[in-house]
Amino acid sequence: MMTQYEKVLGGEITPAIRTAARRERVAPEQVRDELARGTAVLPFNPAHHALAPAVVGRAFTIKVNANIGRSTEKSSNETEIAKMHVALTAGTDFLMDLSVGPNLGELRRAMIVECPVPFGTVPIYEAFSRVGKNIEALSENVLLEVIREQAEQGVDFMTIHAGLLRSHIPLAFKRMMGIVSRGGALIAEWMVHHERENPFFSRWKEILDICHCYDVTISLGDGLRPGCLADASDEAQFAELDVLGTLVKSCREHGVQAMVEGPGHLPFNQIEMNMKRQQWVCDGAPFFVLGPVVTDIAPGYDHITSCIGATMAAYHGAALLCCVTPSEHLGLPTADEVKAGVMAYRIAAHAADVAKSLPGARARDDEMTRARKAFDWKKQFELAIDGETARQRYEQGRCHGEEEDSCSMCGKEFCAIRNSKSAATAKFMEVPDANLAAGSV
Amino acid sequence: MMTQYEKVLGGEITPAIRTAARRERVAPEQVRDELARGTAVLPFNPAHHALAPAVVGRAFTIKVNANIGRSTEKSSNETEIAKMHVALTAGTDFLMDLSVGPNLGELRRAMIVECPVPFGTVPIYEAFSRVGKNIEALSENVLLEVIREQAEQGVDFMTIHAGLLRSHIPLAFKRMMGIVSRGGALIAEWMVHHERENPFFSRWKEILDICHCYDVTISLGDGLRPGCLADASDEAQFAELDVLGTLVKSCREHGVQAMVEGPGHLPFNQIEMNMKRQQWVCDGAPFFVLGPVVTDIAPGYDHITSCIGATMAAYHGAALLCCVTPSEHLGLPTADEVKAGVMAYRIAAHAADVAKSLPGARARDDEMTRARKAFDWKKQFELAIDGETARQRYEQGRCHGEEEDSCSMCGKEFCAIRNSKSAATAKFMEVPDANLAAGSV
Repeated sequence: MMTQYEKVLGGEITPAIRTAARRERVAPEQVRDELARGTAVLPFNPAHHALAPAVVGRAFTIKVNANIGRSTEKSSNETEIAKMHVALTAGTDFLMDLSVGPNLGELRRAMIVECPVPFGTVPIYEAFSRVGKNIEALSENVLLEVIREQAEQGVDFMTIHAGLLRSHIPLAFKRMMGIVSRGGALIAEWMVHHERENPFFSRWKEILDICHCYDVTISLGDGLRPGCLADASDEAQFAELDVLGTLVKSCREHGVQAMVEGPGHLPFNQIEMNMKRQQWVCDGAPFFVLGPVVTDIAPGYDHITSCIGATMAAYHGAALLCCVTPSEHLGLPTADEVKAGVMAYRIAAHAADVAKSLPGARARDDEMTRARKAFDWKKQFELAIDGETARQRYEQGRCHGEEEDSCSMCGKEFCAIRNSKSAATAKFMEVPDANLAAGSV
Repeated sequence: MMTQYEKVLGGEITPAIRTAARRERVAPEQVRDELARGTAVLPFNPAHHALAPAVVGRAFTIKVNANIGRSTEKSSNETEIAKMHVALTAGTDFLMDLSVGPNLGELRRAMIVECPVPFGTVPIYEAFSRVGKNIEALSENVLLEVIREQAEQGVDFMTIHAGLLRSHIPLAFKRMMGIVSRGGALIAEWMVHHERENPFFSRWKEILDICHCYDVTISLGDGLRPGCLADASDEAQFAELDVLGTLVKSCREHGVQAMVEGPGHLPFNQIEMNMKRQQWVCDGAPFFVLGPVVTDIAPGYDHITSCIGATMAAYHGAALLCCVTPSEHLGLPTADEVKAGVMAYRIAAHAADVAKSLPGARARDDEMTRARKAFDWKKQFELAIDGETARQRYEQGRCHGEEEDSCSMCGKEFCAIRNSKSAATAKFMEVPDANLAAGSV
C-alpha cells in the first residue's frame, strides 16, 4: 500500500486532497504540492471512515485541535463522548483523545466511528495504563503493540515522544519546572529507571513501519516543552527540537507524514523566534503548538493567556493550535470549559488567517460589519462564531420590546451608528479647507 | 498655579511623582524625565483627593482602564457605583465614567470621592445630555461649561474629540462602518448640522486654559477610530491622527499633559505599524488604545478578541489599555462582564510587561512556577490574578479529600510534575552519548 504522502510524491491528487482543497478554496494542486514538500500534512487513516479530510500547513487556514479524555480519577466514557460532541459543535477542526486508564480501546472506537475530524492519540498513555501504571513493567514491545492497535482502529495522527533523549535529561533538571509533558515525564522516568535510551527513539524504524502500513501521521511530541516562562527557549527545549528536525526528515524518507509539537509557555516576545527556529530546524514541517501561554499568573483564564500566544504563533507560522481550556493547571475540563477553549482558539485561528491575508479570510468580518451597520441582529448572530452566546448577551441588555435599531450599550440617542448615519444623510459635502488644522492651533 | 507638567519642566519632583515611582520601582527622576519629555503622563487633578497617583508611559508598567457608566436606557447610579467597585477590586488602574443622561454631576461626585485611581470622562456626553440630546441646542459654550465643571469636580483626564475636522467627514463616509465613536459621531453630526468647524478645535485655546487651570490631562479622542477591520488604517483614521499630533505639541506648549486615544478594530498584522505611526506622529505621547479587536466575528467574546490585540499593541508601544467587555457590540456590560474585561486586560498588560522585559516583571510568574512545582495550591491562588476563580475551577475538578499533590487534569500517576520529580531523584546522571541522536536515525 502506498501512503498519502507517497502518492503525492508521485504527483497524484487523491480524493482526500480534493475534499481538503475545496474546503480551503484553493486548487488541489496547491494542496498536493505543499504535502509533497512536507510543509503540510493531511492526516487520514483509511480506517477512519467518518473523516472529512482537512489539510494542515502554513499556507492554509489555521486549524484548531481540542483535547478531551478521561483522567485516572475523573470522568467516564459517556462524559468524554459528550465532550467530543461539544468540541465538534463548537467548531474544532481536529480532536485528540488523551484518555488514560482501563479499556481505552472501547472508548476510542466509539469516538472514531462518530468523529468527522482528524483524530489523534498519545500512545504512551494507553501503554502505561495497560501495564498497571508501573514503569518497570512498561516494555518497548507494549509501546509498539499499542501503536499498532491504535493505528488499526483508525487513529489519524499520534503523538510520538521520540525526541527526548537520555542526554537531555540533565538539561531538563536544570529547569525551574522540569518536565511538564505527561508523555515526556513518563519517558524520562522510563529512561532513568531502565537505564536505556528512549524506546520511541531506539525502536523508531519499527514505529515508522507501522505508521507507514496504516498511513498514520506522526506528530512529533515535545516532551521537553517549557512549562513556565522561566524555562522557555532553553537548552533542553532546543536540544529536543534538533532531534525532532532529524526525525522529520526520517519520516519523509519513509513515506510518512510528520508534524511537530511545540510550546507550551513562552513570553510573548519569544514567540516569533520560536516559530522561525522550528521552521528552520524542521524544514518547514507544520508546527502544532499548545498555546503558548504568555503569562503564568492567570490560572482560571488560561484559554485567554494562551490564545494571545496562539494568535502570535499562528501569525508567525504555526499551523495547528491546540486549545487550552480555562481549567488548565487546575483540573480536568468540563464540557463548558472545552467549549470556552475551542471558542478562544477559533478566534486566534481566524485572527491569524486575517492577519496573514489569506484570500477571502476577512469576508465574514465584512459581512458582520454590514449586518452591524444595518442593525440586523439576526444576521449578526448567524455570522458570529457563537451566535447563541452573542444573542444571550444582547437580550440581557435589551430594554425595548420591538425597536432594534440600537443597543443598550450607548442607547438610541447616543448610538454612533445612528448618529453618523444621520450626519451622512445631511448635506455635508461642501468640504471646508483641509489645511485649516495646521494653521489654527 | 503651576501644573504638574510645568513643575517637572522646572526639574521638580512632586510627591505624586514619588508615589508613582515607588509603585513602578524606578527612581523618581526617571518618572520626572519621562513626564518632561511628554512620553509619559501622570493624570492628577488636585481636587481628586482620593487618588493614588499612577504614571502612564511606554517606559513603565502597562496600565488598564475600565469603562463604566449608565446608558440612557439602562442602569442606575447605584449599579454603576457598584460596577466601579467591581472594576477596582478586579484591579483596574484607571477608570472612566461614560455615563449619559440626567444628573451626571451627582453620580460623578459620588464616584470621585471613593475612587483611588485616575478618573476620566468624556465631556461631550454630559453636554449633549444637558441640552436634551438635541444637536441644534448644543452650543460651544455648553461644551466649555461642562469641561470646566468636570474639572472642578476633580476629573483627572478627559477625552476631548478635537482632532475630527469637517474636512475629515467625507473620508469617514467612504468607510464601510462610518463613525463608531459615540463622541466622534456627535461631533460629526454637530458640524454637519451647524455647518461649522469642530467646536473642540475652534475653542481649543480656551479648553487648554481650563485644563491648565485645573491641571487636567487631555486624552485626545479618536473620533475616527476604525469600527471594523475593513476600515482599519484608512485615510480618515490617519488624517485625524495627524491633527492629534499637532494638538499634542500644542498641549505641551501650554503646560498641559496629553495622551492620545487609538483604535478600535485592527487586523493583527496592522497593530505594530499603527503603534509606530502614532509614536512618530504624536512625538511619543502615551497611546491609549481600545483593544484593538482583531476580528469582527466574535461578538460575545470581544474581551478575548481585543485582549489579543491589546497585548500586541502594548508590546509595540501602547501604554494604557482600555478594557473591552464580553458585551461589546451587544449591550451595556453587567458588573460580571466588567470584571471579565478587566481580567483579560490585566493578562494583556502583564504579558506585555514580561515581553518588554521590564525589570522584575516576571517575578510573580516565577513565584507561581515554584508554587506549582511544590503543589502549593494556596500559594497559587494567592499569586493568581483571580485566585477565587482559580480555586473554584480547582475544587470543581477535585476527587480526593486530603491529597493535594496532583490535580484531576492528569491524575496522580500521570502527573508530569510528580513523575519528573521521581526521575530527578533517581540516579540518572551518567550522561549517555549526546551525539547518539544524529547517528542512529
